[in-house]
Amino acid sequence: MQGIWLEKQQLQLKSDLPIPSPPSGEARIKVLRAGICNTDLELLRGYYPYTGILGHEFVGVVESGAPNLVNKRVVGEINAACGKCHYCLTNQPTHCEQRTVLGIVNRNGAFADYLTLPVANLHLVPDRVTTDAATFTEPLAAALEIQEQVKILPQHKVLVVGDGKLGQLVAQTIALTGCDLLVIGRHHDKLEKLESRGIKVGFEDIVSPRSFDIAIECTGNPDGFNFALTGLRPRGTLVLKSTYAGKLTLDASAIVVDEITVVGSRCGPFAKALDLLSQNKVDVTSLIETCYPLEEGLAAFSHAQQRGTLKVLLKMDS
Amino acid sequence: MQGIWLEKQQLQLKSDLPIPSPPSGEARIKVLRAGICNTDLELLRGYYPYTGILGHEFVGVVESGAPNLVNKRVVGEINAACGKCHYCLTNQPTHCEQRTVLGIVNRNGAFADYLTLPVANLHLVPDRVTTDAATFTEPLAAALEIQEQVKILPQHKVLVVGDGKLGQLVAQTIALTGCDLLVIGRHHDKLEKLESRGIKVGFEDIVSPRSFDIAIECTGNPDGFNFALTGLRPRGTLVLKSTYAGKLTLDASAIVVDEITVVGSRCGPFAKALDLLSQNKVDVTSLIETCYPLEEGLAAFSHAQQRGTLKVLLKMDS
Repeated sequence: MQGIWLEKQQLQLKSDLPIPSPPSGEARIKVLRAGICNTDLELLRGYYPYTGILGHEFVGVVESGAPNLVNKRVVGEINAACGKCHYCLTNQPTHCEQRTVLGIVNRNGAFADYLTLPVANLHLVPDRVTTDAATFTEPLAAALEIQEQVKILPQHKVLVVGDGKLGQLVAQTIALTGCDLLVIGRHHDKLEKLESRGIKVGFEDIVSPRSFDIAIECTGNPDGFNFALTGLRPRGTLVLKSTYAGKLTLDASAIVVDEITVVGSRCGPFAKALDLLSQNKVDVTSLIETCYPLEEGLAAFSHAQQRGTLKVLLKMDS
Repeated sequence: MQGIWLEKQQLQLKSDLPIPSPPSGEARIKVLRAGICNTDLELLRGYYPYTGILGHEFVGVVESGAPNLVNKRVVGEINAACGKCHYCLTNQPTHCEQRTVLGIVNRNGAFADYLTLPVANLHLVPDRVTTDAATFTEPLAAALEIQEQVKILPQHKVLVVGDGKLGQLVAQTIALTGCDLLVIGRHHDKLEKLESRGIKVGFEDIVSPRSFDIAIECTGNPDGFNFALTGLRPRGTLVLKSTYAGKLTLDASAIVVDEITVVGSRCGPFAKALDLLSQNKVDVTSLIETCYPLEEGLAAFSHAQQRGTLKVLLKMDS
């Protein structure tokens, strides 16, 4: 089969990869669609020393290993957990210390014709959710993780910093809480997407310092982090949602003196994400920049690496 | 009167300072004893551009402005708040945006014969608490702030990083929760003080990485911060208790991937601190390194600046 292989920070399109046989408890899935995420780009920049097929955002059709799901469209949670450790036994499988992670840690990913995942990780895609939309389940779930960690109330003033792929999904999910939301970005066209949904947007200069209860950093760069911090009121909460390949330098005194809470946030609830997609409460397909067939995967990566690019999809069912 | 004056990162002992007249709502206090804190040393290093009399840890006797307290020993909360803003009206006066702070922000401090503070900030020192011990009320309250912010349960594994003045007080207060506590330091003699109270102690090499629920950084240096971070289990909480004059560089990916919460922590509850002192549940006087008369204040500062020094007191009632 074909797949996009990462090794030593180099990408290759391989066409002689073996079709994977699912081990016990896992299903083989024919991939229909996959999305390129910033984490894929960070892996290419050396964020984590991964070797294998990249990709963790996907929709596929079950071929074998899960009788009830054969020929059905599924999405899959990316952390394959051991089921036995403290984290697994306390309902925190995304933190299983023995986990493998689809296309990130010791598990071949979704930029290929086939993948395998534990059956327990799979979620049926509701009929009324298109394959393109369902490809956003994983990043949408990650956006929803914020609300699993931080209680956001209608009276809260919330600042989202960043209007890229992640910022767009975070902003749309946060808006559903009814809070007083402002999204800050640097691109008119992207901010307009949010404004058209009734979300307040602007450039950095409209932010009053020290005025937000909660700030969510979605840019992945230190400037974004420090800007989010200056927007927070004393005792505010800063959510760190991006993957950073490098180190972050910050003013620790500001965190101590203002008693700021910083919360790291990663993978989130797939069922809730599918529910939002199914109810059409978020718009994800407008975030698709373009779609490439898998055999043009390297061109797709070049495109995704251009600054300001929204979601680039790979299509395997063409 | 005499006082230790900070200006442009230079200390002077001044002897011609005016005795302050308390404005309405404030009391004049004759200072008996004061303690040199790391924040004083950081101010001297330029942490914040303060000009005036230094000092914020003190015990004194009320002279005027508070009829019920005249001739009584008091300690005082260091943040003088406006009483009208959002933070004051929501019981968060330590975050009042108009506040002055004793010996730190726009308010002459305690390293002098007299100071003034709002009457509302004063707490009577119980008779059975010695003046030396009561001088620790402010830093002890700051240690107790951690428990106002983070729920510490007996089943929690807690790591305190640092065996200095702050680490000693934090460790003693955390130990009272009955949790599984380990204190890491670099000084045999200081760790022994804690060990003699039944607290587990050691050097860095005994810490198992990724195993603590809560880590409390009390060293004030980036190494301490990063060590505390590596000790935390996924979804653990890192409390940042020290004042840092410089910037802090950290691995933001670790915070995101492990969904760590970082909590900045500053001033705390005086009444609870006095209660612990009164019940003899903490030992603070063994933390006194030495005591200087106010007129030898500059020598006291030189002493306090030596690495590994515990609490240096200034005595005004000699």
